[in-house]
Amino acid sequence: MTVEGYGRSFALWRAACPVPWATYTRHAFVERLGNGTLPGAAFLTYLRQDYLFLIHFARAWSLAVVKAGSLAEMQAASATVHALLHVEMALHEGVCAAAGIGRDALEATEETPETLAYTRYVLEAGYSGDFLDLLAALAPCVLGYGEIGARLLPQARGNPYGDWIRTYGGTAYQQLCRDTGAMIDRAVADRLGPAPEALPRWQGITDRFTTATRLEAAFWNLGRA
Amino acid sequence: MTVEGYGRSFALWRAACPVPWATYTRHAFVERLGNGTLPGAAFLTYLRQDYLFLIHFARAWSLAVVKAGSLAEMQAASATVHALLHVEMALHEGVCAAAGIGRDALEATEETPETLAYTRYVLEAGYSGDFLDLLAALAPCVLGYGEIGARLLPQARGNPYGDWIRTYGGTAYQQLCRDTGAMIDRAVADRLGPAPEALPRWQGITDRFTTATRLEAAFWNLGRA
Amino acid sequence: MTVEGYGRSFALWRAACPVPWATYTRHAFVERLGNGTLPGAAFLTYLRQDYLFLIHFARAWSLAVVKAGSLAEMQAASATVHALLHVEMALHEGVCAAAGIGRDALEATEETPETLAYTRYVLEAGYSGDFLDLLAALAPCVLGYGEIGARLLPQARGNPYGDWIRTYGGTAYQQLCRDTGAMIDRAVADRLGPAPEALPRWQGITDRFTTATRLEAAFWNLGRA
Amino acid sequence: MTVEGYGRSFALWRAACPVPWATYTRHAFVERLGNGTLPGAAFLTYLRQDYLFLIHFARAWSLAVVKAGSLAEMQAASATVHALLHVEMALHEGVCAAAGIGRDALEATEETPETLAYTRYVLEAGYSGDFLDLLAALAPCVLGYGEIGARLLPQARGNPYGDWIRTYGGTAYQQLCRDTGAMIDRAVADRLGPAPEALPRWQGITDRFTTATRLEAAFWNLGRA
Repeated sequence: MTVEGYGRSFALWRAACPVPWATYTRHAFVERLGNGTLPGAAFLTYLRQDYLFLIHFARAWSLAVVKAGSLAEMQAASATVHALLHVEMALHEGVCAAAGIGRDALEATEETPETLAYTRYVLEAGYSGDFLDLLAALAPCVLGYGEIGARLLPQARGNPYGDWIRTYGGTAYQQLCRDTGAMIDRAVADRLGPAPEALPRWQGITDRFTTATRLEAAFWNLGRA
Repeated sequence: MTVEGYGRSFALWRAACPVPWATYTRHAFVERLGNGTLPGAAFLTYLRQDYLFLIHFARAWSLAVVKAGSLAEMQAASATVHALLHVEMALHEGVCAAAGIGRDALEATEETPETLAYTRYVLEAGYSGDFLDLLAALAPCVLGYGEIGARLLPQARGNPYGDWIRTYGGTAYQQLCRDTGAMIDRAVADRLGPAPEALPRWQGITDRFTTATRLEAAFWNLGRA
Repeated sequence: MTVEGYGRSFALWRAACPVPWATYTRHAFVERLGNGTLPGAAFLTYLRQDYLFLIHFARAWSLAVVKAGSLAEMQAASATVHALLHVEMALHEGVCAAAGIGRDALEATEETPETLAYTRYVLEAGYSGDFLDLLAALAPCVLGYGEIGARLLPQARGNPYGDWIRTYGGTAYQQLCRDTGAMIDRAVADRLGPAPEALPRWQGITDRFTTATRLEAAFWNLGRA
Repeated sequence: MTVEGYGRSFALWRAACPVPWATYTRHAFVERLGNGTLPGAAFLTYLRQDYLFLIHFARAWSLAVVKAGSLAEMQAASATVHALLHVEMALHEGVCAAAGIGRDALEATEETPETLAYTRYVLEAGYSGDFLDLLAALAPCVLGYGEIGARLLPQARGNPYGDWIRTYGGTAYQQLCRDTGAMIDRAVADRLGPAPEALPRWQGITDRFTTATRLEAAFWNLGRA
């Protein structure tokens, strides 16, 4: 498994927070997804919160459209919003419905502090900062799921969570990760030039990535129940 | 021509600013579009500014996704963003290209004060206010074009601006206007209940509509050149 | 002790979430502040996070200035910002310095997930909603501290946390609470009229208050260390 | 007269748009203020719009507090807000009252398109961009008035607009301009390092300054009436 294809910015941000990154991507919840020992109740708790998460995630990518600096950036972010709201949400509702959780139940779910923390952190980073702050806060989710999916893919067969693993480890999502990583690199270069890591601004963006990673890791904790 | 189908909120807002509304929808620029006497240069000036306008308009509808209060509102606003960025912009570029204005020329166009005033007013209303403030500021554009298109439709045949008239007077756009009007009415009812016009808040929203209408009227002035 | 003086909106919001409100205002951390049994280390942990909290709290009240609907609202919110940034922060630094925590140490403190959750929730409520959403998210902090201070005031004498208690239970802070409560009531009336609780919008604002209260309660948990 | 004391960023931004800068700072309105030939009615029209402008200007500086990256930046921006809302507005009301325009009349003034364009451009730049975008959009007003005041100061004596000239040409305001310029330079360095003008980001910030300058120039046109 390699994540080199997710771009240079991501590689640098990830290397800047090795402990939070490992806590997030190798969390007990993830490992038990991989070996199939995660209790079904924990997965359902996660799915319900993830539904609420996806709503705010779509809002955050919409904010990226507002904050974009070019038509190309707007179109890239808008395509993500469209996929989330008109495709992914429906898939998610389907999985939940199969588990006996209807849409009303999903929408009635109370957000946990972990869900509130991560989603509002990302949105506030976008509102208070600029396009790069927002991308750096969004990146751990998009690309971390890609890294987890790619790593767990060999364990998908016969796994009760095989569908989840194949979704994020599969070709389509991996391509999305590469595209997003390339978009981030271009956005960085279009603003901060060819040597962004020499600038104080880089530390600020990197901090956004690190904090979002810490909150992503905490998000898995809700699956403890 | 009737605009009753655009919903109750719009009818009330429109009735609250009869002079600005007439200045906007019966502006000399509009009348000359209708009778075909508008100089081609004026139309091209308008098209170039309208391209810049559409970019900010798509940003404003994306902000509506961020500020929406339900998944249905998010999906409605997101569908508009998608149509603007992935369909309408391309159509617009096509019309401009046919007139000899390439995409680079479009993007290099300097925003006039009128374009700046209207687009930033709408976006700032959305940022500083809530979903209703944003919809009220967006409504004069969406629904005013529908009203103009419907009124001018009988004059489309043989008119050099017939395509423009048929776009906004045609079935698809008129349906969009009815859908948008219904969405606005639902959004108002979901927040302010069945008698919103009795509330002080209503005056604030109505003022948003009136100011945006005044700035839309001023936008036509740029076609004077 | 009575909190009737904090206004009608607050009384209604508070009554709508009795369990979260009690969890917040009668949290073990609070009770041990009151009876003087709170470990000093827990109080210092709280102080360090509260310093970071105050920064974001000042940012949120500044956002209230941006989102205000009248000069009077702007001036009220601005006076709070000024007091926080030019007086309260200095007091806070003084208390921390006396405990051996310098300003550099304060600023180097890592925000806990609880601090991130509450502060970003408030800011995002303000950005995505309007002035009322922001006030409803700010109210549990301002007025809850007033309620706690007033209740604990008889326990201040001889208490190692007597200064803290007297700050929030004292005359000046209690007046601030009454003024803030009155300002909230006026802001509600100026937008939603004399019977706001009959409107769907009221539920949305009340939810803001409830969620912020839940996150305030969680904030005390950081004093567990 | 020299404006070198207003900082390096300002000097670069100003040099990047010589024509808009001259149109703004040497506008006929300004020249007639200087030689005392401006009709009183034009000055009153300006004062009324400037009152509305100041409200939005205070909102924009409050947004700067929200978007600041350090306590020092927050305190600098907050001090400006406080001076605007609790001192400058009162002075402005006094001047207007002396001219027979009461506060109710001031607040009832309808914003002109020019006022709307400039104020909303600044606020939207702040919302959609970051702290630097906001400072670059605010700078033409703060520092341009300083430059104008300093240049016209020798013409103040016996001039019906002498008070206005002495306000902006006087020691206190000139010091404010130097402080603001230094704050901008520090904010730039703290984000973009010692050679910001080599970065693509610099062009974006410079464009903010240029556009705001163009809109400031248009603002004087309202004094034509």
